[in-house]
Amino acid sequence: MSKQDVFHLITLINPLDKEAIESAELHLNSLTKPPGSLGKLEDIAKQLAGITGETAADVSKRAVIVMAGDHGVCEEGISAFPAEVTPQMVMNFLTGGAAVNVLARLAEAEIFCVDMGVNAELEHERLINRKIRRGTANMAVESAMSREEAVAAIQAGFEVVGELVSRGYRMFATGEMGIGNTTASAALCTVLGGMSADEAVGLGTGIDEQRRLHKVEVVNRAIAINKPNEADPIDVLAKVGGLEIAGLVGVILSAAAHRCPVVIDGFISSAAALAASKLAPQCVPFMIGSHLSHEQGHRKLLSAIGLSPMIHLDMRLGEGTGAVLGFHFIDAALMIMREMATFESAGVSRG
Amino acid sequence: MSKQDVFHLITLINPLDKEAIESAELHLNSLTKPPGSLGKLEDIAKQLAGITGETAADVSKRAVIVMAGDHGVCEEGISAFPAEVTPQMVMNFLTGGAAVNVLARLAEAEIFCVDMGVNAELEHERLINRKIRRGTANMAVESAMSREEAVAAIQAGFEVVGELVSRGYRMFATGEMGIGNTTASAALCTVLGGMSADEAVGLGTGIDEQRRLHKVEVVNRAIAINKPNEADPIDVLAKVGGLEIAGLVGVILSAAAHRCPVVIDGFISSAAALAASKLAPQCVPFMIGSHLSHEQGHRKLLSAIGLSPMIHLDMRLGEGTGAVLGFHFIDAALMIMREMATFESAGVSRG
Repeated sequence: MSKQDVFHLITLINPLDKEAIESAELHLNSLTKPPGSLGKLEDIAKQLAGITGETAADVSKRAVIVMAGDHGVCEEGISAFPAEVTPQMVMNFLTGGAAVNVLARLAEAEIFCVDMGVNAELEHERLINRKIRRGTANMAVESAMSREEAVAAIQAGFEVVGELVSRGYRMFATGEMGIGNTTASAALCTVLGGMSADEAVGLGTGIDEQRRLHKVEVVNRAIAINKPNEADPIDVLAKVGGLEIAGLVGVILSAAAHRCPVVIDGFISSAAALAASKLAPQCVPFMIGSHLSHEQGHRKLLSAIGLSPMIHLDMRLGEGTGAVLGFHFIDAALMIMREMATFESAGVSRG
Repeated sequence: MSKQDVFHLITLINPLDKEAIESAELHLNSLTKPPGSLGKLEDIAKQLAGITGETAADVSKRAVIVMAGDHGVCEEGISAFPAEVTPQMVMNFLTGGAAVNVLARLAEAEIFCVDMGVNAELEHERLINRKIRRGTANMAVESAMSREEAVAAIQAGFEVVGELVSRGYRMFATGEMGIGNTTASAALCTVLGGMSADEAVGLGTGIDEQRRLHKVEVVNRAIAINKPNEADPIDVLAKVGGLEIAGLVGVILSAAAHRCPVVIDGFISSAAALAASKLAPQCVPFMIGSHLSHEQGHRKLLSAIGLSPMIHLDMRLGEGTGAVLGFHFIDAALMIMREMATFESAGVSRG
């Protein structure tokens, strides 16, 4: 394998820059406010300094990476929406009409939509085609994909971010689309996150409790049949994951390898972040949590990764909608670092 | 009293426009997302429709109103900062160096700083002088102010917003500065919010547990000495409130009377919102909660008003910093209403 291989590169991820963090903290404590009173905004400012090595890095060129893939497990009737919605929504992302497009415009971020495994032939000048296969197999009867396909999906996500970094993008948000992907994410949480299927399975895009119990049973069946090895995250991603989820694992690892912050969206993105954290714990300090989803397993999932959500809007849409809203707080933290007066410059007494 | 009298005008506050809310809901359910999946963003969109009567009102001209006042109770040694910080920070707001200035620039909002009762002579071309008196009296030994002064402060806040509405401002955030004002706010929560002083008193800008227990004792003493009548919010504001807090009560009532959304900041602003809600419950639907403060009593205080916080950043600075961050979510909700594609226009299947 070449030197650009993701599994080689992630071994090279260095910890955050301690000196830059200390220097950011010194600056924060000189500003006209009680020390620590801006809470997590101050934590973010320090984390960004540690990631980039700069006191207030320029992250104005930022991208939302929306990875799409279909799920064979839809055959089990686990979703409120038909599978045809995946390619339809991909076209919606490409023409700018989805919620994440609107929120990305608000955040002055660009959307890059990646076909990782949609079960349709899609053509659009803005679509990034990294299709590994047309949807996963039904994990309730067989492995969702082969190990080689999971590795290829991670590698593809890694390369997409690498390419964007070379074009000047410095901050990323994760997003996804794939009817059925809360089921795969719940399976990942069950195997890798110390949760029961009943804790991990929620109402997705809007099923009822009866269908939820069926979804729990499907997740348990998928795990019983495939016997994913929890000590081997790639095995787990291959057997009960998804193509867009494995792609997002690559996105997250790549952001860390390129020392860029990556803002993690809701339940599905967080399942990818959990898998990434198991593959390479050193990538976690490059992640920033965004929102707490309505999906019931999300709180426990975030805490399994070590992330804390800033936004409590009870959203359950995915696409990257929560993550891109999180960009605002990163902008806020950086503006605080750049523009606030110090006790000395403003002539304000310290406590 | 003239017809512009606040206590006359608030009797005229009409409920939210139900027809506009229904029409907003219909539109939301036609957009390419599962119904309700944008959570509180959808609630905000509907609330704004109900407030303004428009599907997606223009609230781009927005103001943060930062009211400042001093507190005689500082004599009791309840704050981590000396009282001289109040006028110093007012000057910092006027010259643009405080945290709320930075975050207002990010939110494209203007700051209006109002001297409601700072214990210093302040002169600045941008300062709005509505000084009622130079700081309150020490509520631990006597009434913080007279009933007439409390009424005048509410009236002043009401007029400040009325003037801004006539200049085209359509959305407001509350903010404040006043060393000692978490103590007055805790007293308001104790009398009006069904909390014990021990629940309501937190660490403010950074005291230790020993000083917090002293602060609890001061709050209990102030209530025992002044015997505020909980059925009469003006009596409570006069005896254990603050000039900037009473001013914010007027701001909130005025926003409702002018059918503008008002975003409520942290602990102190919420104490003002609680008093406003007791004076005129019909103003509550015009309020939008913003952040959950680190201050321990804030969660219970918000639920006493009926507000739910969107932002969990563990901030404890006040000034309007949380409320102005909340503007972003209002912008997001309105952009969703204006720009998202419908199932029909995008050719996406419904569930």
